[in-house]
Amino acid sequence: MLALRVGRITLRTLKSTPARDGFRMPAEFERHSGCWMLWPERCDNWRDGAKPAQRVFAAVAAAIATGEPVSVGVSAQQYQNARALLPERVRVVELSSNDAWVRDTGPTFVVDSRGRRRAVDWRFNAWGGLSGGLYFPWDRDQEVARKIAEIESADRYAAPLVLEGGAIHVDGQGTCLTTEECLLNPNRNPHLSRAQIESLLQAYLGVSRIIWLGRGVYLDETDGHIDELACFVAPGHVALTWTEDRDDPQYEISLEAWQRLRKVRDARGRALTVHKIHQPDPLFITAAETAGLDQREGTLPRRAGDRMPASYINFYVGNRVLVMPLYDKRRDRAAARALARLFPGRRIIGVPTREVLLGGGNIHCITQQIPAPRR
Amino acid sequence: MLALRVGRITLRTLKSTPARDGFRMPAEFERHSGCWMLWPERCDNWRDGAKPAQRVFAAVAAAIATGEPVSVGVSAQQYQNARALLPERVRVVELSSNDAWVRDTGPTFVVDSRGRRRAVDWRFNAWGGLSGGLYFPWDRDQEVARKIAEIESADRYAAPLVLEGGAIHVDGQGTCLTTEECLLNPNRNPHLSRAQIESLLQAYLGVSRIIWLGRGVYLDETDGHIDELACFVAPGHVALTWTEDRDDPQYEISLEAWQRLRKVRDARGRALTVHKIHQPDPLFITAAETAGLDQREGTLPRRAGDRMPASYINFYVGNRVLVMPLYDKRRDRAAARALARLFPGRRIIGVPTREVLLGGGNIHCITQQIPAPRR
Repeated sequence: MLALRVGRITLRTLKSTPARDGFRMPAEFERHSGCWMLWPERCDNWRDGAKPAQRVFAAVAAAIATGEPVSVGVSAQQYQNARALLPERVRVVELSSNDAWVRDTGPTFVVDSRGRRRAVDWRFNAWGGLSGGLYFPWDRDQEVARKIAEIESADRYAAPLVLEGGAIHVDGQGTCLTTEECLLNPNRNPHLSRAQIESLLQAYLGVSRIIWLGRGVYLDETDGHIDELACFVAPGHVALTWTEDRDDPQYEISLEAWQRLRKVRDARGRALTVHKIHQPDPLFITAAETAGLDQREGTLPRRAGDRMPASYINFYVGNRVLVMPLYDKRRDRAAARALARLFPGRRIIGVPTREVLLGGGNIHCITQQIPAPRR
Repeated sequence: MLALRVGRITLRTLKSTPARDGFRMPAEFERHSGCWMLWPERCDNWRDGAKPAQRVFAAVAAAIATGEPVSVGVSAQQYQNARALLPERVRVVELSSNDAWVRDTGPTFVVDSRGRRRAVDWRFNAWGGLSGGLYFPWDRDQEVARKIAEIESADRYAAPLVLEGGAIHVDGQGTCLTTEECLLNPNRNPHLSRAQIESLLQAYLGVSRIIWLGRGVYLDETDGHIDELACFVAPGHVALTWTEDRDDPQYEISLEAWQRLRKVRDARGRALTVHKIHQPDPLFITAAETAGLDQREGTLPRRAGDRMPASYINFYVGNRVLVMPLYDKRRDRAAARALARLFPGRRIIGVPTREVLLGGGNIHCITQQIPAPRR
């Protein structure tokens, strides 16, 4: 009499690992079910009450929403304002956090060949905990991945590793790209060796090959996240931020990354083709910009005159679109052309994101894709 | 190249009405996709820091979850505690509110014959606004329906009517049951006549016939919600709270309701069969119970010795189960037997809910079903 087909909600915390269960993290350029973002509001990191940043976040959400559903998590206090500033078709969900970096605090979704999707919930310590972390506390950030997983009705793996999503990129075919500066930093997992970290990445991302680069982008406060430096644009192809200015400290960093990338093989034994994307000319924080920030102990201060770690690699690859940061008319056009060549099926949408960069990251850092399940 | 089948999110606020678009509110005994609850925490309404009530809410959620997915909305502050107290398979979502009465603050879902589901978002004024409302402010409550609708990815109608979900019951076949004490109360929609209210109920619930009862249960602080007094148990069948004690003020209320119900016809022209469910013997708040409450201006005070409005009608009809309140060994068994006869396909689960009653409602008040879409 009661034939039930109720919506499935499975919210188990699994004791196994994705690799053992046949799951893998898809590449960002594979098909998505949607994208998550978080709403910026903390006044010690986002100037002028976060109002300029909120407008940029809304523009990024609107751009991504042209190709896939976008959900934005927001605190109860900012709910009405976010709902008003975001387009109607963007879903706004109450979900508080210590800051808006969902790439780093959100779950990493993994899929299997049976059409299932699960969430990996990494440990998070605000990019270094009490030894170089960027703010205190990070208790709400710690809960973000689980809350998103539950809203997406996904089972969850709790990975025994401090890791931010921005510290890894995968090609979806068994290869992970990361940096030593971040993953081997003693402020992340000091008790784990390189080999142990490799084995945890293999277990939780479903990869077999880790490609290590050295340092991340010059002055990147995340301790050198890969997502500012380089990313896969297709299996066998990597984009790398670049400069021709040999006096720029970035030159040596990019050169060393290029040399390593030219030498390695991916999980399928392929050599990598490296596509250089010239960085914007150096950008500096102005006194007017720092004047709009609350002072607060425990938060990394921003100082007028500081150079910001700007790179065109920090883009989001959506279903139909690629959303990239714009900084600098001199360089933007060449970067957009290069990305258009690398992603021929996608419309390139540029968003001026200096306000996000002022907060310490960029478009990739404030987004988290949900891969589409597939059989 | 880009064949997309992304998850559909439609979050429009529609200018039309459910009736005009071919939507209707299903009866609670029709099939569900799930159930929503909110987590109690305010210490001026739930004694002892809401801890006793939280345990009862968790038991109710666990009981309903045996038949359908349950989602519980909770403030950021209470998130970890709720996550720990609720069973793993219950979804816990950050969603703040002024109190936990999702029946009254949540959306009323409507469905059409094409398998679509939409949300009706009523106006809410805390059961009477500044003229007899139960607390101030109610700003978060006002947002609950929209937040749930967005998490469920439902389009939304914003109904121009102050109404709580507990003030209406439907048979799913064109009939709505309600009370004059609540819907015609000048603290709800003083600018609307009875005829105008009828026509709004018709437009937003997709019904054609309104059956008016007079007063709600004795001392019910909601101004006589129907969900404490009477409900449809099947088309053509109504359960009514009852007492044989002629000295109880409830006697006259129930008798008048019975007389009205015996006279009316439903939307399909059927006479109604009325099933009397004897109420528990009168229950009174103890001094020990009031001692655990925070004092706060603007919140209806609870006083030792006050009688509580207890009724067995305030149950939840889930997919496989019916979850009913238990109060009083003398009466519980007869009520459970009566409900088992009225709902032969369902397991009857009783939960001792005095702690919910102390807060001013019961199981029906703290739950909100999501009907399954059907073609």
